[in-house]
Amino acid sequence: MTDYTKMWESLGLDIKTHDALLAGLGKAYTDIFLSQKNRPEGMKYFDFVMSEVHGLRIKELMDAKEQGRVIIGSYCVFVPEELVLAVDGVAVGLCAGAEFNFEGAETLLPRNTCSLIKSAFGFKLGKVCPYLESCDVIVGENTCDGKKKAYEIMGPLVKDLYIMDLPQTKSEMAKSVLKEEYRKFIEKLEKVSGKKITAASLKKAVELVNAKRRAVKRLAAIRAADPAPISGLDSLLVNQVFFHDDPVRFTDAVNKLCDELEVRVKNHNGVFPKGTTRVIVSGCPMAVPNWKLPFLIESSNGVIVGEESCVGERGSRWLTEVKGNTVDELLDAITDRYFNIDCAVFTPNPSRLEYIKEMTKKLHAKGVIHYSLQFCQPYIMESGPVEKELEKSGIPTLRLETDYGMEDAGQLKTRIEAFGERLKKK
Amino acid sequence: MTDYTKMWESLGLDIKTHDALLAGLGKAYTDIFLSQKNRPEGMKYFDFVMSEVHGLRIKELMDAKEQGRVIIGSYCVFVPEELVLAVDGVAVGLCAGAEFNFEGAETLLPRNTCSLIKSAFGFKLGKVCPYLESCDVIVGENTCDGKKKAYEIMGPLVKDLYIMDLPQTKSEMAKSVLKEEYRKFIEKLEKVSGKKITAASLKKAVELVNAKRRAVKRLAAIRAADPAPISGLDSLLVNQVFFHDDPVRFTDAVNKLCDELEVRVKNHNGVFPKGTTRVIVSGCPMAVPNWKLPFLIESSNGVIVGEESCVGERGSRWLTEVKGNTVDELLDAITDRYFNIDCAVFTPNPSRLEYIKEMTKKLHAKGVIHYSLQFCQPYIMESGPVEKELEKSGIPTLRLETDYGMEDAGQLKTRIEAFGERLKKK
Repeated sequence: MTDYTKMWESLGLDIKTHDALLAGLGKAYTDIFLSQKNRPEGMKYFDFVMSEVHGLRIKELMDAKEQGRVIIGSYCVFVPEELVLAVDGVAVGLCAGAEFNFEGAETLLPRNTCSLIKSAFGFKLGKVCPYLESCDVIVGENTCDGKKKAYEIMGPLVKDLYIMDLPQTKSEMAKSVLKEEYRKFIEKLEKVSGKKITAASLKKAVELVNAKRRAVKRLAAIRAADPAPISGLDSLLVNQVFFHDDPVRFTDAVNKLCDELEVRVKNHNGVFPKGTTRVIVSGCPMAVPNWKLPFLIESSNGVIVGEESCVGERGSRWLTEVKGNTVDELLDAITDRYFNIDCAVFTPNPSRLEYIKEMTKKLHAKGVIHYSLQFCQPYIMESGPVEKELEKSGIPTLRLETDYGMEDAGQLKTRIEAFGERLKKK
Repeated sequence: MTDYTKMWESLGLDIKTHDALLAGLGKAYTDIFLSQKNRPEGMKYFDFVMSEVHGLRIKELMDAKEQGRVIIGSYCVFVPEELVLAVDGVAVGLCAGAEFNFEGAETLLPRNTCSLIKSAFGFKLGKVCPYLESCDVIVGENTCDGKKKAYEIMGPLVKDLYIMDLPQTKSEMAKSVLKEEYRKFIEKLEKVSGKKITAASLKKAVELVNAKRRAVKRLAAIRAADPAPISGLDSLLVNQVFFHDDPVRFTDAVNKLCDELEVRVKNHNGVFPKGTTRVIVSGCPMAVPNWKLPFLIESSNGVIVGEESCVGERGSRWLTEVKGNTVDELLDAITDRYFNIDCAVFTPNPSRLEYIKEMTKKLHAKGVIHYSLQFCQPYIMESGPVEKELEKSGIPTLRLETDYGMEDAGQLKTRIEAFGERLKKK
């Protein structure tokens, strides 16, 4: 194994803590992922990516920086990767998936803050996220109250925090707000990168990101098969790697995985027996290495066949139409694409409910597990009406509210198993 | 006392529960307000208003309805009373200040929802708010995530819920969003009232609301005197009545009160001894009958000399400039006025911090008590940086987080008393 200590030191990481973090991550990965039976060969690529998640990939970011490319970090699917690629930048999703240094985070944030936000602060204060430390710009978006206000506190801690405002409704005015924010983001990107976005560079970027989305959409569609050719855990991992891997290489790896899975489907070769209880997980995003709920579900005789989540279909199901011959026209298409995202911060947000129903049907799921992070008001508030409507449509729904800690794992498992019994009788 | 049972029945109130609520309210009012010593004579008007809060005032609303006037209810200072008055409507703030029927509210809302929102639902489900039941339209505004998403759940429970979107930043684009929302609100008001807003009717309305604001601003300024000529409790009550009383009568009553207080100031006649520890309360709004914290402070040898709150200076300190000769020009002035409001849902929100400092200075307060409702993410998130900055400026600050229940009253009192000791040594 390559020794990356020097690189990590140069990024200002706390080496000792970071070593401990990586060791913990490695063990969790072995226990949760490598212990799975009959995994697709194609997952080997993702195993490698994960083993080098703070190593080789960071080295690549460092090399990109040396070549004069900018690294743009973000915490939300509303930040268009297309625009970053159009200035030849690298877009990376930032670490917010582990319960790390919450004591530190709570010196700056209220206790009643969701784990995702606490995690972002824990990583920053603990100096263990090489992605965060590599960034030239970090984009904070005004989605929920928690993130919106937390970015005010994060500002002084990082080099260049850029705030992107977002609308809260789906009106025409709201769409203009979004386009204007994307226009301002282009200005920011051009300034930090010293490169101008052209219609050609933007079109190329759109096509590149579309290809990446097409690949994960292909994976999502394959999961309709019974027996399931791939576990929910492995599929989630692909969706997580989506946010920080090289887009071209990632696309290629996902398509290879899909080639293999299609053969599996043809041969009725599954990772779980045919007839295993199938569920959709819907709700808050699960950032790397948040594998808690999928692990509990798939070790309780269930299989997850789809994620209605920003790390899942909500993040990738829409393509950007390659339409227009000017930057402004392409920006219209990009705005149209992102304006579809049905995050619970929007009001009202009926398309999310409709899509959960659609996913349940097309992926032949028997029920929905609604996942809310504790203190995530938008998803928790939406979960009640969503549950009511799904049950009314004959789709059994289990609402869970949890954090990144493992204290409630037993309780959750009991509830998941009971829900599984209910689904079996269906 | 007039018997209003028939009127309440006609509004669909649950008479038995409502009687119990009023009895409880009356007792609390007697214990908290009428027990105060050396109260200004001018508070008699407000005692009367409170004794008739669900009686005479509702009768007036019923009479207004009979005359063809519309009743517009709201939960936020971002809903411009000027526009409602300009169609000869009546604007009323809605009940959200008491811990009533939270069990009912929690059948629809997550437990981790602030008391203000739960209260609004508790009143609606318990059928005990005659204001709510009198309304032709209820305006829900997209401020915090909690309210924004709760209105989706409230929609089916009320006759006509109108959603007003609000921006989250103070950019030029954000101001356009606000103006556009106000323009749409005019359309809505014109539709329900059947009356057109004219420059003349709008100008008159602006002047009327300005007069009301001038009166409470006058009251706010008088409180700079030591000894305090009026208690924080009584001043808060005035600010609460602001939201549902007849504006002309209210303005007159406040000005009469101020006349009396100015004489008191001249004679050094206070409700507490000179030198009583003076504090500003800053943070979440306190809707009627939320008197918990002021009561705890003023029964702990302190006096509140100002409220940095939407039910307080944040709600009333800006006047609308009477500028322009068309509805559109006046609407610009109205937008300018409301765009100043420094609610914690905005990001960033530096003017709030600056104004707390300014209030502390001009009202000769020794410290600030920051009041957050539990689960109110915007104010809780802002309270940390606000405390840090105030302390840095030499202003001792106590951060409290509480709800409408009385379970923590003893704990809060202990903390307030300890804070008082700290201020005395200053």
